[in-house]
Amino acid sequence: MCKNKSLVGMMTDFGLRDHYVGVMKAAMVALCPDLRIIDISHELDPHNIAEGAYLLWASYRHFPPGSVIVAVIDPGVGSARDIVGAKIGNGTLLGPHNGLLDLVLWEERVKAVTVIDVHKTFTRNLLPANISRTFHGRDIFAPLAAHLAAGKRLSAMGTPTTLDWISSPFVEAGSPETTPGVLHIDRFGNIVTNIRNTFPGVESRRLTLGITGRHITSWADAYEEIGRGEICMIPGSSGLVEIVMKERSAAAFLGVKRSSRVQIRREAKQ
Amino acid sequence: MCKNKSLVGMMTDFGLRDHYVGVMKAAMVALCPDLRIIDISHELDPHNIAEGAYLLWASYRHFPPGSVIVAVIDPGVGSARDIVGAKIGNGTLLGPHNGLLDLVLWEERVKAVTVIDVHKTFTRNLLPANISRTFHGRDIFAPLAAHLAAGKRLSAMGTPTTLDWISSPFVEAGSPETTPGVLHIDRFGNIVTNIRNTFPGVESRRLTLGITGRHITSWADAYEEIGRGEICMIPGSSGLVEIVMKERSAAAFLGVKRSSRVQIRREAKQ
Amino acid sequence: MCKNKSLVGMMTDFGLRDHYVGVMKAAMVALCPDLRIIDISHELDPHNIAEGAYLLWASYRHFPPGSVIVAVIDPGVGSARDIVGAKIGNGTLLGPHNGLLDLVLWEERVKAVTVIDVHKTFTRNLLPANISRTFHGRDIFAPLAAHLAAGKRLSAMGTPTTLDWISSPFVEAGSPETTPGVLHIDRFGNIVTNIRNTFPGVESRRLTLGITGRHITSWADAYEEIGRGEICMIPGSSGLVEIVMKERSAAAFLGVKRSSRVQIRREAKQ
Repeated sequence: MCKNKSLVGMMTDFGLRDHYVGVMKAAMVALCPDLRIIDISHELDPHNIAEGAYLLWASYRHFPPGSVIVAVIDPGVGSARDIVGAKIGNGTLLGPHNGLLDLVLWEERVKAVTVIDVHKTFTRNLLPANISRTFHGRDIFAPLAAHLAAGKRLSAMGTPTTLDWISSPFVEAGSPETTPGVLHIDRFGNIVTNIRNTFPGVESRRLTLGITGRHITSWADAYEEIGRGEICMIPGSSGLVEIVMKERSAAAFLGVKRSSRVQIRREAKQ
Repeated sequence: MCKNKSLVGMMTDFGLRDHYVGVMKAAMVALCPDLRIIDISHELDPHNIAEGAYLLWASYRHFPPGSVIVAVIDPGVGSARDIVGAKIGNGTLLGPHNGLLDLVLWEERVKAVTVIDVHKTFTRNLLPANISRTFHGRDIFAPLAAHLAAGKRLSAMGTPTTLDWISSPFVEAGSPETTPGVLHIDRFGNIVTNIRNTFPGVESRRLTLGITGRHITSWADAYEEIGRGEICMIPGSSGLVEIVMKERSAAAFLGVKRSSRVQIRREAKQ
Repeated sequence: MCKNKSLVGMMTDFGLRDHYVGVMKAAMVALCPDLRIIDISHELDPHNIAEGAYLLWASYRHFPPGSVIVAVIDPGVGSARDIVGAKIGNGTLLGPHNGLLDLVLWEERVKAVTVIDVHKTFTRNLLPANISRTFHGRDIFAPLAAHLAAGKRLSAMGTPTTLDWISSPFVEAGSPETTPGVLHIDRFGNIVTNIRNTFPGVESRRLTLGITGRHITSWADAYEEIGRGEICMIPGSSGLVEIVMKERSAAAFLGVKRSSRVQIRREAKQ
């Protein structure tokens, strides 16, 4: 029933100090003993849906075909917010319907998701007897992820709903209305913007950026090309433009904080 | 010898910055290549036995039958403190005899544990040739956990000892003498008390609590029912009453610190 | 092709907050579905090659035969710095040639390493189609580690280079020229020196140390032998002399900082 190579990628804001992540994993393995689990991250700031959406987007494509990706940053746990699943190119995505999945859904051109019917999945014995209203990670997300990894069909877990997308979350060709901004600051202090490496002006290095009052015009391809103390843009490894320094935190230097929404100007290089 | 689905749950206070956890895992897998390991937590404050006991208790029941749970918060490492193992409903528990296992042993109504005989297990080739006196996690706990997961009998590793329990660690029906207090504060700032959800007055919402000079009377079932800035009790997902706020740290707001022992008053609701 | 028990030990300075570690694991498992991964550490300070070298050295010997150990603390990523692999007693070591591997290479008496030829491995389809210049962990180290774990030969991935060792990184018999110092400070505040437990004067307890202006003369074998507030040397569990206190941080007490290079005096006990 449960294939040997079933793989679950897992992201939460539960942290690694508490037992919540371990309990989710135990609940999954109890249902699917051969399940394999890869952690994407559990240490984001609590309730930080925006950064979670970025990490999910930057990771999911590297999972092999047939993977299940389950994400739980869920301040609305126990409320009427939906839990949704979606088929994507390399597997299945499961998470709360609060924006956390949006970057992946956009990237994958997903036009409809399955809204999980908790009552239906419960009556089909896919959920435990007692479902808390404060720990759906353990009681709903983990068992459904395990069942999906074991081959249960997503469509049997709920009903389809159409998504209404208006504009791209990324600054890219054909998305003139998207606001440039910061998606993520990593542990090295690299600032990840929402500007695609494919955006006009990136490849030609004619794009320049303004952030916290500073005008950034230098480009590099690798850290070694950057002088000490210099601030540079690079076409980042996830496919987005990053603002970086060499062995130093660009975010600290510029006073950009995690999850702060910084206006990014695009100016013609002179 | 070593079954494919052997599962070890692991909790230590070693942290994830050092190599200690990785070394324990390598030592286990070297003995039992197909062993699977699920981390419960390694990031508790060093030597915090009380919080470790809570995390263990809140996690162990979610592991599938046949699991081995090994816990190492062990300030007495290298001293005459005992290492004990116990059969519990879903497997085997292994750890230092310093209180760390007490909540699980109480919950499981364990009346006797096996005191590990290090000399005997050593002569039976269950331990490495050199046993340090400062890293029993690597040299004793890991190999014994691996051998238990591989099917070795706990009773062959030591001698039985009777436990003397006096009162419940939980505030529950029939434990009038137990002092109410804080068991844990999680990363969200939720305050986990030692009061069972089954304690009289919880289900009827007639119980009220006093903590750090404040009188808490509100109850909720889910975070969405809580107003901004309001402090509430909820029947927590582990089976204990928690004091929480919505998307905010109740512990920080109330000035309750991790592992601080806070007196909890029970007062009749008016 | 990919054996069930292939084991990869993994150390980076990527941290667990970002997705980088999870992406490396996904990239490995995508190539070798049955691969097993054990984390050594990902939470060292960014770019701290010296502490990484210690953690690697203190861990690698505990991995079972046939393991692959991949280490990525790589401030020179994307530059001309080499990536090297080496056969060691229990498997294969892979990492940047920046000092990170030096303690293991010294310990294992490795006299030649294989300098990875990225172009050659790329043309042999061992690397992905697009290789970034800022995330070799994902694009080079992870796939090569997976291929090594799957049985691919290291020698086919590059060309051999001889190592020139001058003196031991450890203070040990026959290394009079090595400077005594601090290799690591662990989460408990234990100070790990580079003095081998086998160094003359350690077993006889005639060795004394000076650090940050203080003269340390006490020895213990286990923490329980140490008085409250006392500073002691112990022959540490990794084979190096440590300076410790009982349930207290010796590093904080002595004002020794992580990765600070502290001069250690050796004085004859009176």
